[in-house]
Amino acid sequence: MEQIERIKEFGGWLNRYRHASDACNCLMTFSVYLPPAADQCPVPAVYYLSGLTCTDDNVRVKAGAQRYAAELGLALVMPDTSPRGEAVPDAPERYDLGQGAGFYVNATRGPWAAHYRMFDYVTEELPELVEANLPIVPGLRSVTGHSMGGHGTLVAALRRPELYRSVSAFAPICNPVAVAWGEGCFGAYLGHDRAAWAEYDATELVRAGRRFSGPPLIDQGTADEFLAEQLHPEALEAACLDQGQPLILRRQPGYDHSYHFIASFIGEHLAHHAEALTRRP
Amino acid sequence: MEQIERIKEFGGWLNRYRHASDACNCLMTFSVYLPPAADQCPVPAVYYLSGLTCTDDNVRVKAGAQRYAAELGLALVMPDTSPRGEAVPDAPERYDLGQGAGFYVNATRGPWAAHYRMFDYVTEELPELVEANLPIVPGLRSVTGHSMGGHGTLVAALRRPELYRSVSAFAPICNPVAVAWGEGCFGAYLGHDRAAWAEYDATELVRAGRRFSGPPLIDQGTADEFLAEQLHPEALEAACLDQGQPLILRRQPGYDHSYHFIASFIGEHLAHHAEALTRRP
Repeated sequence: MEQIERIKEFGGWLNRYRHASDACNCLMTFSVYLPPAADQCPVPAVYYLSGLTCTDDNVRVKAGAQRYAAELGLALVMPDTSPRGEAVPDAPERYDLGQGAGFYVNATRGPWAAHYRMFDYVTEELPELVEANLPIVPGLRSVTGHSMGGHGTLVAALRRPELYRSVSAFAPICNPVAVAWGEGCFGAYLGHDRAAWAEYDATELVRAGRRFSGPPLIDQGTADEFLAEQLHPEALEAACLDQGQPLILRRQPGYDHSYHFIASFIGEHLAHHAEALTRRP
Repeated sequence: MEQIERIKEFGGWLNRYRHASDACNCLMTFSVYLPPAADQCPVPAVYYLSGLTCTDDNVRVKAGAQRYAAELGLALVMPDTSPRGEAVPDAPERYDLGQGAGFYVNATRGPWAAHYRMFDYVTEELPELVEANLPIVPGLRSVTGHSMGGHGTLVAALRRPELYRSVSAFAPICNPVAVAWGEGCFGAYLGHDRAAWAEYDATELVRAGRRFSGPPLIDQGTADEFLAEQLHPEALEAACLDQGQPLILRRQPGYDHSYHFIASFIGEHLAHHAEALTRRP
């Protein structure tokens, strides 16, 4: 991997890298914040999966997360939201399909399948890469994300619970198979067989018996402009209750879907992850 | 003034307003963050003057200031950087003149003089407006800013020291009459008489005997890409030393000119202002 940017922040370093991704079959860009503690010894990492239209830049500029990561001694790993480049299929007229909208799935249908393998990318290829090349403790990971990235976060944790010590999400798409954002993408990426869609739906995964060892921490603003149509936290909540999956779902009065909402609570999320990552197993 | 946006953040409210400005002779947009404490009683305000190309949005999205303002019980008042609109003169081929580049001066030359009165706007019209309409204590103000806004901040404090309890700046243009950014704008806005320019130059104001009652707090990154050509903190430092003006100038190793630098130190700046604003006179 090639380092393409290095910015000092809160005594640590906000770095950006580019590498040839096997999973995505293209050049991928990501950012990592290394806290001051990483100068002394390897640190645990929190992965942040971003929402629709984002790159790795949105969270690092808007969330205010680096301050807390510096204080808590956590690395932040911030991937892009899809494969990129002229050779990568896109749907330029849509913000919710194609580049910027990978939905953290492994696509199985053309033209997407040759590049859109974001599930493998964020759960396997990227952790292996950063743990081999940066002062990050191998295997000591937590995951969080926003909206489409909150969906990816919950799916990653439910399908690969052994990879993460803790999981949290901001305004996640909790039941994508039942809403327009998910239907539009899953049909394109995965085809018409809805059984394949259920493998990328947190609510369906819980219903089918998948578990995460601790309670996912979810914050959801009550003034979120996408809450009623796209997010459906009540479906996940009901599935968790039915199935005995612990869940911390906090409805935050008056907050919207923006990074101002994320900024307000990212400190509590990172503290939650730091506690899990430093707890003795 | 008309409220055009309202976003909950850190338990308070990030609001945006539009109003017909007398000073700028156009519609102006600005943002105010009101901390949770403002629900109970009026709070002091810190004004943040932004840099070249910015609107009120950059700082509210990128600086991470609202967290500290919420904790400290401070309002943040975030004006735009110039008059705006189709009727307002511009230099679209330049990022450092015209809209987005008001330089916080009262222009005296055509075509700029009819609108570009940002000094009066930020020091008089805007404070009167927000103090009359929002839960902000009249007259209890501090001021900070970045780059061109750091210049505006120092000039406001040195020319109108009675208006502010404390002043700070991030990577300010300390001696604009001596650098390309200042020369290009001051010639256009103020004409060829360099005596008029000196009224908008912090170093020249100190040399001419202007004083601020406390030490301005300035942070300057040593890896700032504009440091050598445009900022000249050493000129201000020398003038302050010559004239007995206290100054806290901190050279921060490795930091650049970006909002990642501002984010790293805005908490210390707001704590500095909170101390001054809550001190008994």
